[in-house]
Amino acid sequence: MKRSFIREILEVIDTDTISFAGGLPNENLFPMEAIAVSAQKALSDPKSLQYSFSAGIPALRDKLAAYYTAMGLETSRDNILITTGAQQALDLISRVYFKEGTVVEAPAYLGALNAFNANGCPLYPYELRKTEEFEALFEKTKRAYIMCDFQNPTGYCYSIDDRKRIAQAAIRENGIIVEDGAYMELYFEERLPILSLFAPNHSLHVGSFSKILAPGLRLGWIRGDAALLQPILALKERSDLHTSTLSQMIADIFWESGKFEYHLPNIRAVYDAKCNYLADKLTTLLPEFVFEKPKGGMFIYGTFKGEIDAHALAMASLKAGAVFVPGGEFYTATPQCSEARFNFTHSTFDEMNRGISIIAQTYKNSLTKR
Amino acid sequence: MKRSFIREILEVIDTDTISFAGGLPNENLFPMEAIAVSAQKALSDPKSLQYSFSAGIPALRDKLAAYYTAMGLETSRDNILITTGAQQALDLISRVYFKEGTVVEAPAYLGALNAFNANGCPLYPYELRKTEEFEALFEKTKRAYIMCDFQNPTGYCYSIDDRKRIAQAAIRENGIIVEDGAYMELYFEERLPILSLFAPNHSLHVGSFSKILAPGLRLGWIRGDAALLQPILALKERSDLHTSTLSQMIADIFWESGKFEYHLPNIRAVYDAKCNYLADKLTTLLPEFVFEKPKGGMFIYGTFKGEIDAHALAMASLKAGAVFVPGGEFYTATPQCSEARFNFTHSTFDEMNRGISIIAQTYKNSLTKR
Repeated sequence: MKRSFIREILEVIDTDTISFAGGLPNENLFPMEAIAVSAQKALSDPKSLQYSFSAGIPALRDKLAAYYTAMGLETSRDNILITTGAQQALDLISRVYFKEGTVVEAPAYLGALNAFNANGCPLYPYELRKTEEFEALFEKTKRAYIMCDFQNPTGYCYSIDDRKRIAQAAIRENGIIVEDGAYMELYFEERLPILSLFAPNHSLHVGSFSKILAPGLRLGWIRGDAALLQPILALKERSDLHTSTLSQMIADIFWESGKFEYHLPNIRAVYDAKCNYLADKLTTLLPEFVFEKPKGGMFIYGTFKGEIDAHALAMASLKAGAVFVPGGEFYTATPQCSEARFNFTHSTFDEMNRGISIIAQTYKNSLTKR
Repeated sequence: MKRSFIREILEVIDTDTISFAGGLPNENLFPMEAIAVSAQKALSDPKSLQYSFSAGIPALRDKLAAYYTAMGLETSRDNILITTGAQQALDLISRVYFKEGTVVEAPAYLGALNAFNANGCPLYPYELRKTEEFEALFEKTKRAYIMCDFQNPTGYCYSIDDRKRIAQAAIRENGIIVEDGAYMELYFEERLPILSLFAPNHSLHVGSFSKILAPGLRLGWIRGDAALLQPILALKERSDLHTSTLSQMIADIFWESGKFEYHLPNIRAVYDAKCNYLADKLTTLLPEFVFEKPKGGMFIYGTFKGEIDAHALAMASLKAGAVFVPGGEFYTATPQCSEARFNFTHSTFDEMNRGISIIAQTYKNSLTKR
């Protein structure tokens, strides 16, 4: 089994390398003090260190249920299953529902593709934005994994019309759409209605605390019809019994304290500024890279003009001290392609400036060598 | 997929029910203050909340490596993979190595049987203690899952001779023994050499912080040959990226502080006393239950004299306010049987007294009704 480029890169780059490769949230934005206070409160109760329910602690499930209900999607505790990060949600869902195959996006979130592959699920990629292609494939598979909000890797947002069309397909085919909402709260302007709103009983909405609080807690969840969740819960129990009780209690206490109301706008503002800065640098230093500035999320995605092998450029840049992810990684067939993904949340402005300069120089050198 | 008796019981019993059913460590023994101090220290570094390596944080892997090396089993960081509890270790191992089937004990740890079943692994049970039967089956499967120290559910300890024989079989057949050491540190007298010591390259030793520190952290590990660990690591990455960074740092800082040196003898002494008390109560109040007192672990296991259906007795006792696990649950075929498992770590002395009285009375009533 091949390990992912991103995880392998993570382990080999030294601290001097400027990385646009990972999907790391900015740790300067972690609300350290509020989390420390939440942890102390949690640890005043021995239950925070004891075994707990496989579905998750009731208090946190209730908060998540209220969050969806407030969006207009009637949700109760029984519709929520807490997972060990959104990644576990994808692993479990694919083991239960994707055995016969699923539609995926092209390009798609690499961690999802890897999990589905590891579990032997046949993948049917559709070209992002081509909803008709989606519909044709979904008719066969009745299963799909998509990311409507600030998609990883492209930053693309599905239009409301496309969301409705896909939701209708799910209902018409009596199928299941797995909607990954990991980035949905990282909007710079507005949050569109989630697709699941239009197909409440034919969707599993996957969420994550990794981008809005802290990935180190390993906290995610699935929102869905209780009957659809049941076999996932049984597998969850067999996979790791339950998610860290302490992590769940910390998130619950943090949420209870009302801190998200300040924390989320803060993250959004900082990421918006970083996105603008990176977009600026790319435009001025590397004009051969063509992209559309995203309205949220964590990545700028685009294409190098001409017949550039983005993988070769990434490896050459890595040697020169800066790295990004070549777009081919996000396709099931890993084709040679000239697309690339740049993360804008983790580096400082200065690092972005230096990093893009290094990549621009490497790009120029590679042209000369031809 | 059937959910386990134990997990389902956990969700339905009210707080008044006296439970000998779970495998819960005693939360009064959780070193709350030391863990809170460790958590504060961890949370002074934003890295505790960031993504981290799939294999686990280096500091904790180094400590675990030193722990095995001190036992005489040469181990480096590369031989250690941190998992989200020992349960995840079993899930991952079975998905990688047990596809063609594995020998298991009869009776065996229910969570392992459930995970293996969920993953479609054919199971070949051998009657505990019958090493020849083990050898005959292992010749075919080349894979086995066993618990040598204070086995769950029986409390049985493999003799040194049997450990050596099984280790030799592993080497002879070029197979893999998965040795579950979850209870190994909970000895009342002594710890025997682990089986893996006799087959270092043909074994995967699974460990857990759940019994020696706190299960709510969801922290376990696998010790094994680096080449054997490699495909497990790739699957681990796809299953939940990595185990909670915060949990790992808390355990690492707690360990670093030297607190285990006081904590472990304390747990052992309390559990020893509780085991003695429960054994006493069973002998005096329920003499029809025949058992051998274990020398460690968390359970007393035995057999009701006569043709008692332990499952029916457990359900009747539950109605009367006390519950244990009927032995049939621990067999792959779930036969009707007169065996039963009692946990002695979680209840107070008073609860044990009342609980066993309730079960004894239920037992007598069931005889009268015949």
